Amino acid sequence: MSQMNSNPAVALHNPYFEQKQGSKDVWSLINETAAAAQAESGKPIVNLGQGFFSYNPPDFAIDSVIHALKSGFNQYAPAKGNPNLLKQLTQHYSEELGRPVQTNEIAITTGANEGMFSVFFGFLTPGDEAIVFDPFFDQYIPNIEMTGARVRYVELKFPDKFNTENVTGDDWTVDWEGLETAINSKTKLIVINTPHNPIGKIFNEQELKRIGELAIKHNLIVVSDEVYENLYFGAEFPRPATLKSLPELAKRTLTIGSAGKSFAATGWRVGWVHGPAELVQYVIAAHTRICFSTPAPLQQAVAEGFEQAKSNNYFENTRRDYIKKYEIFNKVFDDLGLPYTFAQGGYFLLVNLLSVKVPKDYVYPQEILDKGTDDYKLAYWLIKEIGVVGIPPTEFVVPSKRVAHGLEKCLRFAVCKDDSILEEAVERLKKLKDYL
Amino acid sequence: MSQMNSNPAVALHNPYFEQKQGSKDVWSLINETAAAAQAESGKPIVNLGQGFFSYNPPDFAIDSVIHALKSGFNQYAPAKGNPNLLKQLTQHYSEELGRPVQTNEIAITTGANEGMFSVFFGFLTPGDEAIVFDPFFDQYIPNIEMTGARVRYVELKFPDKFNTENVTGDDWTVDWEGLETAINSKTKLIVINTPHNPIGKIFNEQELKRIGELAIKHNLIVVSDEVYENLYFGAEFPRPATLKSLPELAKRTLTIGSAGKSFAATGWRVGWVHGPAELVQYVIAAHTRICFSTPAPLQQAVAEGFEQAKSNNYFENTRRDYIKKYEIFNKVFDDLGLPYTFAQGGYFLLVNLLSVKVPKDYVYPQEILDKGTDDYKLAYWLIKEIGVVGIPPTEFVVPSKRVAHGLEKCLRFAVCKDDSILEEAVERLKKLKDYL
Repeated sequence: MSQMNSNPAVALHNPYFEQKQGSKDVWSLINETAAAAQAESGKPIVNLGQGFFSYNPPDFAIDSVIHALKSGFNQYAPAKGNPNLLKQLTQHYSEELGRPVQTNEIAITTGANEGMFSVFFGFLTPGDEAIVFDPFFDQYIPNIEMTGARVRYVELKFPDKFNTENVTGDDWTVDWEGLETAINSKTKLIVINTPHNPIGKIFNEQELKRIGELAIKHNLIVVSDEVYENLYFGAEFPRPATLKSLPELAKRTLTIGSAGKSFAATGWRVGWVHGPAELVQYVIAAHTRICFSTPAPLQQAVAEGFEQAKSNNYFENTRRDYIKKYEIFNKVFDDLGLPYTFAQGGYFLLVNLLSVKVPKDYVYPQEILDKGTDDYKLAYWLIKEIGVVGIPPTEFVVPSKRVAHGLEKCLRFAVCKDDSILEEAVERLKKLKDYL
Repeated sequence: MSQMNSNPAVALHNPYFEQKQGSKDVWSLINETAAAAQAESGKPIVNLGQGFFSYNPPDFAIDSVIHALKSGFNQYAPAKGNPNLLKQLTQHYSEELGRPVQTNEIAITTGANEGMFSVFFGFLTPGDEAIVFDPFFDQYIPNIEMTGARVRYVELKFPDKFNTENVTGDDWTVDWEGLETAINSKTKLIVINTPHNPIGKIFNEQELKRIGELAIKHNLIVVSDEVYENLYFGAEFPRPATLKSLPELAKRTLTIGSAGKSFAATGWRVGWVHGPAELVQYVIAAHTRICFSTPAPLQQAVAEGFEQAKSNNYFENTRRDYIKKYEIFNKVFDDLGLPYTFAQGGYFLLVNLLSVKVPKDYVYPQEILDKGTDDYKLAYWLIKEIGVVGIPPTEFVVPSKRVAHGLEKCLRFAVCKDDSILEEAVERLKKLKDYL
């Protein structure tokens, strides 16, 4: 600390990245709590916190990287993306959209995160505004604000009945009045996330149509973060870019995809943006400056992975596996009578623990109390006493609305884990019946 | 085009990324010219244009990726970097700096490009200023301007005698008066690039000291882009972070490194930033938002690569190989009497072709003429008539100073190519004697 204070260059930092004294981010705080609990108990903690896979990508995907490395894909890929991957993605989207898609409608980015960031930089300038539904994936906010634009929040309304019964994504409704009020002459983008993290909601056709009509009326772009696109569990997955009831919406939709989510390889950082060529060109221009190009061997591997996935039904099999994972995991909450939001897609389960009676005199460390919401206490207690890690979901709520939010009694669990890990979690969570 | 004009969403784009009508970037223009010439002549063009390696990374590095993939490095790496790579880099910098370096002094970034971008975002806010030496690596400018900050250019002065004789990096001198004038109350950073692209200059101890004294006097950070750090050809490589004559400069220096440059793998996109922990924390904060984390298998591979490189003297051998590459390539210019800037480091050679008499009635395509400087015509002619690709270096000069700049008669050649490619280039360049 003395070194910090004595270095006058520290004063030059961008205040946006101010390190808040004693305020750890949710991932560090929860992961460190889990690690400490594990060390203390000498027993492994079941980590259903962060949304990484507990298992490896499929062998065919690993083999594709090795093949790419040995085939010379080790120098700069073109800024807009490896031509083979672009071609695979045109085929993927041609099938999804039911029309021939061209390579200039796609930009490869260094993960979906950098894809979103490139979209925001391609369209937002200081003073502009972007609409984000609250709760939201936390990275959207700084990614928008770093362009100098402002975020306007519109609620996905916490369903009252979720305190006593299971709900679905359809019960989490858009605050339509709030949405219409939020749109003004500075608004340029509406960001949606479907399947939604942390809710598991898939925006339905009617909702997308209504959002799309507003986007058309006010000349806005719809940014559709669809990184969980291969993990939907109903008959269909409506997308802004394929909306039968409003086909003209595709002309102003930018869709984000993720190889990490699609191939269980969150560490590969290959994502993409799909949309009209005349919009995608600005995403490519921003991406070229931000990352220049995306890792060459991993891009080529994802191209080969898509090719393989077609012949081995990888995506269909994965969807079936995930339906089973939810069956394994949901059952304990059914048995306990703890309500959850039935996941229409993605790999998270949002569980309402309102009826769990955590001992009132339970002692929490100051850094947990400093967060100021009950879900952090709940997460801490669950790690220490039950041995299962979940994420406090108020982290995905705008700070001013966290206290007294319905989500304050909820936790988000990630099911992108081996079945045996989910089964162990279920065994441990059964102990919750002593606290009901 | 009709679709473009009919889509009202296009009007929402960020004007900073305006696509200039008919103005292709240098890489597209030169690469397309080379491809067309090759198709036309039916003979491969010798491409010494862009700075990618014509050969693969060493086998030990490829094997390290395979090992990493099979060892489970496929999910998110920590935002600040893979702990094994951080450890290897602390050892690397401990040796270079002669003191123990800690892991919190290093941030892993998604390529050096995103490292620079993260440094700029960590420190620059709208209205701030950063100083860049002109000529410069082209990405610096948008990377600074995207934060809302302004670039002030300070000349590295073209040595007059370079029109008639060989020079070294030391002959390219800093415009000291310009530097002192450029610094004002808004200045936060001075960016240097050593070894320098495109000049091949290594800033000497005296220059670094004088820049460092100004940085200390005015409380500025020195950003030292040292991506070619392993390719220096003299006895030593002075760095701002290791300056014996001004050790306190290290406290305000952020050094950028590149695994792509170090391991002949420009497509891997693994870079890093080294500096005082109290400054690096802001780089990590920005990087966490921009890319979240850097590809996990490639980070682990680079960690293993550094370990191997120590025992097989990879960096020393590479330096020796590059001295030989320059010997092969420089000789043709010695024989022709065409002056070049002797490269003190890096993998480029800047050659002055002032005395080459390109036929006055030679016909150029409009897009070459539109660039407005003679080096584009020279590059075009060399590709078409000699069959060798070089890059017009006025691309690295601030636009207002390109015309009549000494560099207008120069081309930049990349020597990071197999010896056989360099030998073929030499054979072809011998034909230039007919035009002297």
